[in-house]
Amino acid sequence: MQASSVVGDIRERFGKQLRKIRTRVGISQETLGLDAGLHRTYISMVERGERNVTIETVEKLASALRCTMADLMPDDQN
Amino acid sequence: MQASSVVGDIRERFGKQLRKIRTRVGISQETLGLDAGLHRTYISMVERGERNVTIETVEKLASALRCTMADLMPDDQN
Repeated sequence: MQASSVVGDIRERFGKQLRKIRTRVGISQETLGLDAGLHRTYISMVERGERNVTIETVEKLASALRCTMADLMPDDQN
Repeated sequence: MQASSVVGDIRERFGKQLRKIRTRVGISQETLGLDAGLHRTYISMVERGERNVTIETVEKLASALRCTMADLMPDDQN
């Protein structure tokens, strides 16, 4: 086991960051899913921190949200 | 099928970005593997674009390289 230097699971932090950007863009989970080629329920699970997404999925989400992949990373400064 | 707006597979672009940062930091694949809790051969495969890594792995790599997760994203500006 390894101590984490940040609060919260990386999946949860990614989910929060995705939700923050999606709501800022002003689209629904369904619209994001359609634009990214992912199912709405998958978007919902990702935003709840229930999926460990791959960089291929991060790229699809960034493309659909017209942001960079870096924007979606839940680093402390975000 | 969907046209890609960038040249190269996301896995290959991530691998190149990882290698760029690792060599800039000046550590071997073996040292990075030890620090990130990943096998050296896995690091090698990631750098060759042969693995679709998850954000959990991105976090481990960023922590070991003392960079942000965003730094590891192969966006055009990187």
